[in-house]
Amino acid sequence: MLRSLVQYLVILSLCFSGMRCNPSESASVNTTQAAESSGQSSDVYNVAFLIMEGVYNTELTAPYDIFQHTIFREGVKPMRVFTVANTTEPITTIEGMRIQPDYDYLKDEFPTIDILVVPSAEHHLDTDLEDKAMLDFVRETAEDAMFVTSHCDGAFVLAKTGILNGHVSTTFPSDIDTYRKMFPQLDVREEVLFVHDGKFITSAGGAKSFEAALYLCEYLYGKTIAEDLAKGLVIDWNLSTVPHVVVPSGS
Amino acid sequence: MLRSLVQYLVILSLCFSGMRCNPSESASVNTTQAAESSGQSSDVYNVAFLIMEGVYNTELTAPYDIFQHTIFREGVKPMRVFTVANTTEPITTIEGMRIQPDYDYLKDEFPTIDILVVPSAEHHLDTDLEDKAMLDFVRETAEDAMFVTSHCDGAFVLAKTGILNGHVSTTFPSDIDTYRKMFPQLDVREEVLFVHDGKFITSAGGAKSFEAALYLCEYLYGKTIAEDLAKGLVIDWNLSTVPHVVVPSGS
Repeated sequence: MLRSLVQYLVILSLCFSGMRCNPSESASVNTTQAAESSGQSSDVYNVAFLIMEGVYNTELTAPYDIFQHTIFREGVKPMRVFTVANTTEPITTIEGMRIQPDYDYLKDEFPTIDILVVPSAEHHLDTDLEDKAMLDFVRETAEDAMFVTSHCDGAFVLAKTGILNGHVSTTFPSDIDTYRKMFPQLDVREEVLFVHDGKFITSAGGAKSFEAALYLCEYLYGKTIAEDLAKGLVIDWNLSTVPHVVVPSGS
Repeated sequence: MLRSLVQYLVILSLCFSGMRCNPSESASVNTTQAAESSGQSSDVYNVAFLIMEGVYNTELTAPYDIFQHTIFREGVKPMRVFTVANTTEPITTIEGMRIQPDYDYLKDEFPTIDILVVPSAEHHLDTDLEDKAMLDFVRETAEDAMFVTSHCDGAFVLAKTGILNGHVSTTFPSDIDTYRKMFPQLDVREEVLFVHDGKFITSAGGAKSFEAALYLCEYLYGKTIAEDLAKGLVIDWNLSTVPHVVVPSGS
């Protein structure tokens, strides 16, 4: 706790009040080497999206699209995106859309996961936190993954597994108080769109799920690729205007 | 053409250069009466999303989520959202997600459509424009619908049916030139996030698809509901900061 209280680097771009700062030093643009040396697959990043009944559309599709569109950019190691669930039957999102998962994480073989994304779902504050098999899947995947990211209440799932202990995180703005009460051991930040601490990137979610995904792309591929990905989705990307927290590695 | 050249009302909030304007006069906050008197279903707005192979995730889910979340707001006539396609077998989005359509518009009975949404799809600039059955569906639905909206290249589909003739519209920024060449009879605007002309709302698409949907909600339900819907998706909604065009009715 002391570490996170004292040593974190707060990069808050208070864009609404006109203040800006430059996070470029903390957002390394060339960490592909780290990925290559960590035993991950070398031709693509395998990015798994953990979905379940009641998943929120936007918190699934926003990062999914940013990451998937890397296959259209030249000169980068692209991301192979896919969904995992505890079934391969269609799941129904909270908005009522029916999505067919690619892999059943309980039964199927699937690619080694480099990046795990946990979008929010309807029961992430209650019954999903009692789903031992799902929590075990997240905990075990997190051990070897390069990155584990959450959007909105997906942070509750990460926190419940214990993998966020000792790390700084955030969640959906209206659920910050509940998050702090449920996980009093965590260092929780608010009024930021995302927090990056080690392998964990936790996002406020909603439509701001694009920002966390673009940040990771800027981290992995550099600013130009991130800007290009953003442009494809009609986003004027400038990390320096995005309120966020990056905890320096090794702190 | 002269009408649209001379008489339109341009509401351009040049937020990037700090200029603002107030579109509140054109964005009526109480048009529910108009809906009630037009023969639409009275308890809900039926909102159909036209999907097909290669549909773009975000341009489907962004407006889908904004509209669907109206069921969580008290005191409003909510929207019932559903997808329509030329099949009820799963379709694969351009990003590779598999979505099961709710209705086959060629075979099934489905609710009378009050609002038709046409998200972009991979072949909206080529082969989809040769899909006569789909174009007929759009044209016929548009006749009785209250609103017909497009996101990104969905405007090409609307334009191909002829329903945009005599109306102002926009599309995905990088496809504006192609749009103008393909449909030289149209009055096309650029550097705006959406255009509202009569029953048609055409959006630049991408992540800015939220804005067009929020605009329609502000139009139907008022500013407070739109702000509330936006907050649920971590969007700080203020129409006066959104570059857009509204063509006055009757012009």
